[in-house]
Amino acid sequence: PGVAMAARSRSLLRGAALLCVVAAGDSLSAHRVAHGPLGRVVSRHALRARALGMVQLEAKALTLSNWLEDLGNPGLARTLEAIFSSAAEVAGKIRTSSCDSVEGCFNTLGALDDEQFAIDLLANEVMYERLSSAGTVATISSTQDPYEIPIGGRGFSVAFDPLDSAASVDVNFAVGSSWGVWTGSKLTGIKGRDLAAAGLTIYGPRTAMLVATGARAGVDEFVLTDAIDGVWQWVVSNRFETIDEDQPFRRAIFAPGNLRATAGNAGYRELIDFYIERCYHLRYSGGMVPDVLQLVIKGRGIFANPDGGAPAPARIRLLYEAAPAAFV
Amino acid sequence: PGVAMAARSRSLLRGAALLCVVAAGDSLSAHRVAHGPLGRVVSRHALRARALGMVQLEAKALTLSNWLEDLGNPGLARTLEAIFSSAAEVAGKIRTSSCDSVEGCFNTLGALDDEQFAIDLLANEVMYERLSSAGTVATISSTQDPYEIPIGGRGFSVAFDPLDSAASVDVNFAVGSSWGVWTGSKLTGIKGRDLAAAGLTIYGPRTAMLVATGARAGVDEFVLTDAIDGVWQWVVSNRFETIDEDQPFRRAIFAPGNLRATAGNAGYRELIDFYIERCYHLRYSGGMVPDVLQLVIKGRGIFANPDGGAPAPARIRLLYEAAPAAFV
Repeated sequence: PGVAMAARSRSLLRGAALLCVVAAGDSLSAHRVAHGPLGRVVSRHALRARALGMVQLEAKALTLSNWLEDLGNPGLARTLEAIFSSAAEVAGKIRTSSCDSVEGCFNTLGALDDEQFAIDLLANEVMYERLSSAGTVATISSTQDPYEIPIGGRGFSVAFDPLDSAASVDVNFAVGSSWGVWTGSKLTGIKGRDLAAAGLTIYGPRTAMLVATGARAGVDEFVLTDAIDGVWQWVVSNRFETIDEDQPFRRAIFAPGNLRATAGNAGYRELIDFYIERCYHLRYSGGMVPDVLQLVIKGRGIFANPDGGAPAPARIRLLYEAAPAAFV
Repeated sequence: PGVAMAARSRSLLRGAALLCVVAAGDSLSAHRVAHGPLGRVVSRHALRARALGMVQLEAKALTLSNWLEDLGNPGLARTLEAIFSSAAEVAGKIRTSSCDSVEGCFNTLGALDDEQFAIDLLANEVMYERLSSAGTVATISSTQDPYEIPIGGRGFSVAFDPLDSAASVDVNFAVGSSWGVWTGSKLTGIKGRDLAAAGLTIYGPRTAMLVATGARAGVDEFVLTDAIDGVWQWVVSNRFETIDEDQPFRRAIFAPGNLRATAGNAGYRELIDFYIERCYHLRYSGGMVPDVLQLVIKGRGIFANPDGGAPAPARIRLLYEAAPAAFV
């Protein structure tokens, strides 16, 4: 198990190789700290109590504000806070818009080569506004505005895909966002390993965020909850540290992106056949963020998105998507 | 395009064939009534206005209570109302539980042959309680309690899978529920075509429900929204009537379930190869409800879940899942 990701760079990282293969391999961390198997439980009453118990958990949970304080880096904390609050706002927009019913929201615009929805632009604007208000961000760049844009703050630069929603948000599949924070004011000539922090936001039945920082080992998962005094709060819900390799093929997952690339890429076709023959479980929702995130949570599996040339180009960009996901 | 579904029956419909293939084929309805392409739009301001405009739509939207009144069948309306209100409650549980952080909620119990989570049992209990209170339901049966259970009401019988969450709810993918309502007090000796109503609930970034009734053509999509006077309401957000066959291979989707069945099923393996060669888009989240529902919303594609014998049995049951989905 491990996460391999092949991405054709269309980013601003001009110094980087065009084909980036990030193979975290066996070192990828994904152990559930507070997650032990229940085994055979026959009492439904006990199960129900456990399930309900969870709702009350947040009162003693680590909140985002405490977590940010522990970071010991006020500028980075302020930057991350802006990203978290953007995600909370965007989650509300997606949840209540019921966008299919009038023209515009989830329609394909067709103005760019990717599918694009009005909700993507809305998410982009929310990030822009919150990061501008933070005062700690000098430069931003997004998949919607793929340029270095100075926004007047000082300390950090942020690259993001505000909403990787193409083809999934209208059918109500989980969709995601990826982001990376670098120290300084440049988003060119930088490297993924220099990230100060990076994360993957998922808008599913729950709104959650996986965050990694350069200062700490492991990855923290936050969930947006309304349990504390009626106020929406982000709380830490998981920490992923090591990968479980006890049974490497037990429910191993494969998420093969850009399957059309098999037409011109015999190696990829062979790889797909290998997974099918080895009885890997297929789980591919069509969004990089949910498809990578499931592997971290399950602690096993592989995500791929190789280039297939002109008829099936890879659509994952190093700056906005691959570097943050690989860092996580 | 069309929806093909192969399901090995493990249901109470003892009279039905063990292998049920429901092929809706070209007659499946999936036209978006209020959904026209925007074309090239260059003004971001206009886009933003459209996106925000959507949030205000609900004030003039058809609400669930009006829709139920139009049904002209008070008993059925009361039954459906119980199902809708169950879904709203379950959505809240899933959204706020942040269940990964304490043992129990999303852990595999291992007591049955399917993966099972405490949240599944919770969803089952919510349905049981609401349907019992309705007074219009004589008999229920669910995947969690696969028996005919009398609950004291009169008029209808309801079969349901309360939450098809296995392997998807912990990773925050969209999950779903399927349900069917028959007139009378029996869930044996009945047929899918006799359904009084059936539906698919999806818990994704939005909570939505696709509903078909025997009395009306087409399928209505409802979305749960909090836009009207601060009260959570179900509003009609889409109606699907005809399938778009203009460009049959334009972004055709394939959702191949039980891929491990290809090991012992050469025909299925050939079918998979066909889809890959024809450049169908792979979208398979691992849950029947979201994977079927995406096809209705997109208006094209195929879902399959054939049996693969003892090593890879099909897990879709006729009574709880296949009949309701095929009816929709």
